[in-house]
Amino acid sequence: MRRRKVKGADEKLLSYKDYVVRDNIESLKGNWNKLFKNDNPIHAEFGTGRGKFLTTLAKQNPDINYIAFEIKEEVLLKAVEKADRDNLNNIVFAWADVSKALDYFDSNELSRVYINFCDPWPKKRWAKRRLTHTNFLNMYREILNPEGEIHFKTDNEGLFEFSLNEIASNNWILKNISLNLANSDFENVTTEYEDKFMSQGLKIFRCEAKSK
Amino acid sequence: MRRRKVKGADEKLLSYKDYVVRDNIESLKGNWNKLFKNDNPIHAEFGTGRGKFLTTLAKQNPDINYIAFEIKEEVLLKAVEKADRDNLNNIVFAWADVSKALDYFDSNELSRVYINFCDPWPKKRWAKRRLTHTNFLNMYREILNPEGEIHFKTDNEGLFEFSLNEIASNNWILKNISLNLANSDFENVTTEYEDKFMSQGLKIFRCEAKSK
Repeated sequence: MRRRKVKGADEKLLSYKDYVVRDNIESLKGNWNKLFKNDNPIHAEFGTGRGKFLTTLAKQNPDINYIAFEIKEEVLLKAVEKADRDNLNNIVFAWADVSKALDYFDSNELSRVYINFCDPWPKKRWAKRRLTHTNFLNMYREILNPEGEIHFKTDNEGLFEFSLNEIASNNWILKNISLNLANSDFENVTTEYEDKFMSQGLKIFRCEAKSK
Repeated sequence: MRRRKVKGADEKLLSYKDYVVRDNIESLKGNWNKLFKNDNPIHAEFGTGRGKFLTTLAKQNPDINYIAFEIKEEVLLKAVEKADRDNLNNIVFAWADVSKALDYFDSNELSRVYINFCDPWPKKRWAKRRLTHTNFLNMYREILNPEGEIHFKTDNEGLFEFSLNEIASNNWILKNISLNLANSDFENVTTEYEDKFMSQGLKIFRCEAKSK
């Protein structure tokens, strides 16, 4: 997504004190349920963009807590505004880099990690930056509980192929693999990016994986 | 593949006594290595068509024994003629139905099963006929040794998606998944059918799976 610098986005974002965490996010490690004031399962999206996907899920599932991670303040602001408009109380937004997730979560603290349309980093020498690289998978395994799952979507065939192989070779159990989501029975909640792609008739790939 | 009835194909096929087995194939169960007169690993292709794939491998790998299964006599004859022309002594052709493989092989008797461009049986009610259906996978697990693998190729996206899910959900370990074989580094030996498809620019899907 092209990044537009929006004047004052930083200040606006930080003014949503009930929704946005940034500073001292490490202090929430092991304590996220206190922030949500309940013991419901926690699902996190790593790279939430404009937030349609996770705010829709938060509306649909009041008994699940959601954390939306995004480093780009301009798009994160759009996401926060959606949650505020709907007065959602089971979602917070982390203005932070997901590569440091081990600093933010205790072992077993999450029940699900969503990764939607992350940067494919197509060159081989960039493989370690892909959010489904073995190093990231090991991090997810650490912070997910034993029943925890990754739910992954992309429009990028090369990234999907890479991801299936990384997931399988790291002894996760793949399930609900779709090579063309438009043809599947899955009740899909879409992202903004995905809506655009689907309207152009492009294929969306999806899979779930369970740590063992 | 469209089937043309070739006059006399049956008799011609059975005249290749050193290459073709049909009657009493059950008597070879547990005894295939005696037929090959050595203890080399045995790789079988279930649905060999005109035989380019397996005869090429047989030429490349003299220390592996190959069994090519095919029920259509007209295409099997083409395959046998290829082997005879090259005077191959590490391949035999089984004119038989692979759904009865448990009658033909002992536990652990095979080291690899190749499935190339099998019938996709696209309607849901036909799923059990697909060669990657759970029932078939369980059969392969029985006749493969513990290090044994399935190597699967298809041009059919729906069948590949189905197969990945069947394989993963039955606790096989997937590896070397390719969503577009033309883009991969894999040193591919092609089938006749595959050559035609690739020349039309169509995608070939491929994966390997190891029983646990």
